[in-house]
Amino acid sequence: MAAQTPDYAYLTELGQQLRVDAIRCSAAAGSGHPTSSMSAADLMAVLLARHLRYDFGAPELPGNDHLIFSKGHASPLLYAMYKAAGAITDDELLTFRKAGSRLEGHPTPRIPWVDVATGSLGQGLPVGVGIALSGKRLEEAPYRIWVLCGDSELAEGSMWEAFEQAGYSNLDNLIAIIDVNRLGQHGPTRHGWDTAAYARRIGAFDWHIIEIDGHDVVEIDRAYNEALAADGRPTAILARTKKGKGVAAVEDKPGKHGKPLSDPDEAIQELGGRRELHVTVAAPPSFQVAERPVAPPRLPRWDTGEQVATRTAFGAALAALGDARADVVVLDGEVADSTRAEQFAEAHPDRFFECYIAEQQMIAAAVGLQVRGWVPYAATFAAFLSRAYDFIRMAAISQANLRLVGSHAGVSIGQDGPSQMGLEDLAELQAVYGSTVLYPCDANQTAALVVAMADRPGISYLRTTRGETPVLYGPDEEFPIGGSRVIGAGPNDRLSIVAAGVTVAEALHAAEQLAGEGLPARVIDAYSIKPIDEATLRWAARETGHVLTVEDHWPEGGLGDAVLAALASDGQPPRFAKLAVSSMPGSATPAEQLRAAGIDAAGIADAARTLIKP
Amino acid sequence: MAAQTPDYAYLTELGQQLRVDAIRCSAAAGSGHPTSSMSAADLMAVLLARHLRYDFGAPELPGNDHLIFSKGHASPLLYAMYKAAGAITDDELLTFRKAGSRLEGHPTPRIPWVDVATGSLGQGLPVGVGIALSGKRLEEAPYRIWVLCGDSELAEGSMWEAFEQAGYSNLDNLIAIIDVNRLGQHGPTRHGWDTAAYARRIGAFDWHIIEIDGHDVVEIDRAYNEALAADGRPTAILARTKKGKGVAAVEDKPGKHGKPLSDPDEAIQELGGRRELHVTVAAPPSFQVAERPVAPPRLPRWDTGEQVATRTAFGAALAALGDARADVVVLDGEVADSTRAEQFAEAHPDRFFECYIAEQQMIAAAVGLQVRGWVPYAATFAAFLSRAYDFIRMAAISQANLRLVGSHAGVSIGQDGPSQMGLEDLAELQAVYGSTVLYPCDANQTAALVVAMADRPGISYLRTTRGETPVLYGPDEEFPIGGSRVIGAGPNDRLSIVAAGVTVAEALHAAEQLAGEGLPARVIDAYSIKPIDEATLRWAARETGHVLTVEDHWPEGGLGDAVLAALASDGQPPRFAKLAVSSMPGSATPAEQLRAAGIDAAGIADAARTLIKP
Repeated sequence: MAAQTPDYAYLTELGQQLRVDAIRCSAAAGSGHPTSSMSAADLMAVLLARHLRYDFGAPELPGNDHLIFSKGHASPLLYAMYKAAGAITDDELLTFRKAGSRLEGHPTPRIPWVDVATGSLGQGLPVGVGIALSGKRLEEAPYRIWVLCGDSELAEGSMWEAFEQAGYSNLDNLIAIIDVNRLGQHGPTRHGWDTAAYARRIGAFDWHIIEIDGHDVVEIDRAYNEALAADGRPTAILARTKKGKGVAAVEDKPGKHGKPLSDPDEAIQELGGRRELHVTVAAPPSFQVAERPVAPPRLPRWDTGEQVATRTAFGAALAALGDARADVVVLDGEVADSTRAEQFAEAHPDRFFECYIAEQQMIAAAVGLQVRGWVPYAATFAAFLSRAYDFIRMAAISQANLRLVGSHAGVSIGQDGPSQMGLEDLAELQAVYGSTVLYPCDANQTAALVVAMADRPGISYLRTTRGETPVLYGPDEEFPIGGSRVIGAGPNDRLSIVAAGVTVAEALHAAEQLAGEGLPARVIDAYSIKPIDEATLRWAARETGHVLTVEDHWPEGGLGDAVLAALASDGQPPRFAKLAVSSMPGSATPAEQLRAAGIDAAGIADAARTLIKP
Repeated sequence: MAAQTPDYAYLTELGQQLRVDAIRCSAAAGSGHPTSSMSAADLMAVLLARHLRYDFGAPELPGNDHLIFSKGHASPLLYAMYKAAGAITDDELLTFRKAGSRLEGHPTPRIPWVDVATGSLGQGLPVGVGIALSGKRLEEAPYRIWVLCGDSELAEGSMWEAFEQAGYSNLDNLIAIIDVNRLGQHGPTRHGWDTAAYARRIGAFDWHIIEIDGHDVVEIDRAYNEALAADGRPTAILARTKKGKGVAAVEDKPGKHGKPLSDPDEAIQELGGRRELHVTVAAPPSFQVAERPVAPPRLPRWDTGEQVATRTAFGAALAALGDARADVVVLDGEVADSTRAEQFAEAHPDRFFECYIAEQQMIAAAVGLQVRGWVPYAATFAAFLSRAYDFIRMAAISQANLRLVGSHAGVSIGQDGPSQMGLEDLAELQAVYGSTVLYPCDANQTAALVVAMADRPGISYLRTTRGETPVLYGPDEEFPIGGSRVIGAGPNDRLSIVAAGVTVAEALHAAEQLAGEGLPARVIDAYSIKPIDEATLRWAARETGHVLTVEDHWPEGGLGDAVLAALASDGQPPRFAKLAVSSMPGSATPAEQLRAAGIDAAGIADAARTLIKP
């Protein structure tokens, strides 16, 4: 509880101030979501003045509570809270949504008190679960996670992944405050003010449920106290509210979503005018994060010529990294035996998070864990990362440092068929802001890249292969991100074959065949697809005049397009051809699949002959 | 009920036969999921022999029930059912997972009795909801939808989107049969055999719940009868089963997922040996689909020079298309006012489906509706299609004909900030097998493309713009998919600027500026990004020698890369530059955003000068 204990009249006044300021900044911006802010103003007033423990002067303090606006469009309310807490000035409040202002339309971590970007609904609570998992399972920390949710976003499946994970994990440090204002963007929600309908559903997932009038500060205060009397369950406070509360022109009216009030001055008058209440927010309890020692890893080593799946190398390297670094955590989507993340789980069960088949929650939990300084690796089949693409997209806006691993890439998985084949993952992950995309071809290279990812900022992605591939490189070789390997370059080369992952060995076989036919070719192992080794590609293209790319991926957005983009602005682009998977695979052996797609050694050699001698 | 009423001993025998055949075909394949099949064998035996109404000789009959294996990995069981029903021979059963066989590792519509591909968990039930919506709301059809679900996939949020939509929509033609075998791939599920935990959860979503022993054919039969006694609610049958049931070496044992039995002969013996029971499956009731008249649409018309948002043109054209075609249906993710799908909703409320903020269910429902012959358009913000990317990926494997519309594309939305900006949607949708990607720049073009999409097979995507753009083309002009428009071409052009959507008008302004500086340039409006107009691009590149692309999208996988790929295999690639969004936007006006990203007229002109006079 706060040092001061403001009385209820004060809390009511504070709620009105938050409404007024939400209206004011939206009016100044000419856009924004004041009505969605007004419904939750009393909820946030009581939280700010009596329950939140947060030092706005020191957001890095590890004992600070976490406050997440899962309904990110209520940003005017959040920013009005910052003003009330003295964290920003009134002048800054009025920069809302203007160019250069950190007070964006939806909150992002450009603001030091915002952990993660929200605005794609249904993500704040799942991320909160990740922060709560850290607090309960890893840190034994005193902080609480307060998540303001909308009622509309309860339609998102990701919310139910979060309810399930939090209930199952007994996250009593997590409090979801659900602003049931009954009106979505386009119209009424399914359940309106029937908070009992939500209570049944969320309660069934083993949450503690409190139903209140979300405009009654006494009820709100009691609800927070009840939630904080932790009983091993997370709490959902279902607060019946009115959208646009307090202003007759918009209160509980449809068609008032996402726009400023038409007469803000009148509305402010109706709310009792401007106020300048200043809230002294309670300080966080003193808490020190336990040290997380980091040492250089002792990686597994493979001899050249061995046959090892890169997914196996990933698992072994990850376990070794976990030995060396106490900050590494791993998340699984119930396929750890396939991805080989299992090896980490066995070595470090305390830092392994089983998210079951809930990829959205898996990524969100990873985002939450990195908020608390952990170094998360999240692994599933490459194909199933597509399930969480919106979360990955938002993680980039959240400035999250996240390591994703997708196994079972491409047709080379063989018999399981197209539903299990990652064939769009390179396109998907390349089109993430600031991302890194890696696709190793052998075990030692994989291990090196797994280590490099740990210190890589942003979203990095490692694509692994199900089947065995030959170990081409020694265990002490280096593979910097942004680099490549040129294999078998000669002065008379007429072709550069650019491959990655499973196609590198195929390309080497093709180069052997071609050499025998008097068509010498070099192979470029483009293990770093983004950033790609532009200098080497240009050099090779100029030397050989012909470039052939080959990838186990759809033709769009993968290795070939990355190579093209790298070569395109060069003055002398080479003759070029791209090999990729261009028809829908069925079931077959890995070798049959590569053959059918034309990306095996024979397919590469054929394409090379066509390209060089047209 | 079936014409014959097989006795319970027969049903038990049939269950054993299904197990034996699942083991046999997996053994022949050397891979597959026999244990996941064995748990559900009794459930499917009773269904096939006593409750399913299906003519395997005439899968097109509109009265046929629908059977979906949401747990698609149990394909050996499905194929064993086909054999028992006489739909395939034993020889064909043993082609399971072999190259060229339609009996793939996970079911796909290459099999005539399979509606949709499954294998990415948590998708079969949401698609079943779509088929059920058609049956109840549009067709008043007698068919029932049986969906075999796994317990592991209950962790997927999409299942809860489906439970919510089905319960709310009173879909009593939908029966989810949940095979609670307590073991996932990597280990035990969260709730094991605690079917009461699932009953509480699913029941809270207003489903009728039946808990049974999934190996007791009497209980199973009673449960199906109870489910069919429709009471306005969908039914979930929670069946406690044992994975690998009937074979001691694998029964209820961990580590036995997704692999053939090590001693299939002994297992078959333990199950009582091979059987050759043949099931006469009940015929479907006679049912005729009501005619859905299709006439040429009378499209709205805009005059050149007007300022109209393409999203507005989309809404108006869609409503007009709905007037002309009774087969068009529209799905919304609770943003119909923003996407303008609202215009269709007002004109045709009976064919409008509000899916609330549940994009996965929205896409799945669209897939289900097209299974029943409807022509669905699903619209949300371009950014939020990323929420359903796995569903879109799978829809392509399902051979679905689906029209997706993404509004609010790019930085040009302005103040709302990056969470609301579709900046990866072109990459995402281009990397879908067989997809079509369209990005109109004006209202009349938009209307024409909306119509063209209706008859386009596969997944087609229309990207629309939030703000107004000038009408450039007359209302009677034609815009074939795969085409482009060349604007202002002259014999002395030194540059081709390739733009689409919001950047076309910017490119035209830039071309004006450049012409004044003695740098004549033409603009290519590449409204069809996939397939792209390769011939025109090559012609323009050769004529002008310089190509500059400009797009409101991340640099990866969008328009620029599509143009590069089209030009790359030409003998004489041009000098090239790509303009795209390369830093993370904040909030600002649309014009400020375009400026900051360097994709407005000034940015284009600058880049053109640099490209031409390096």
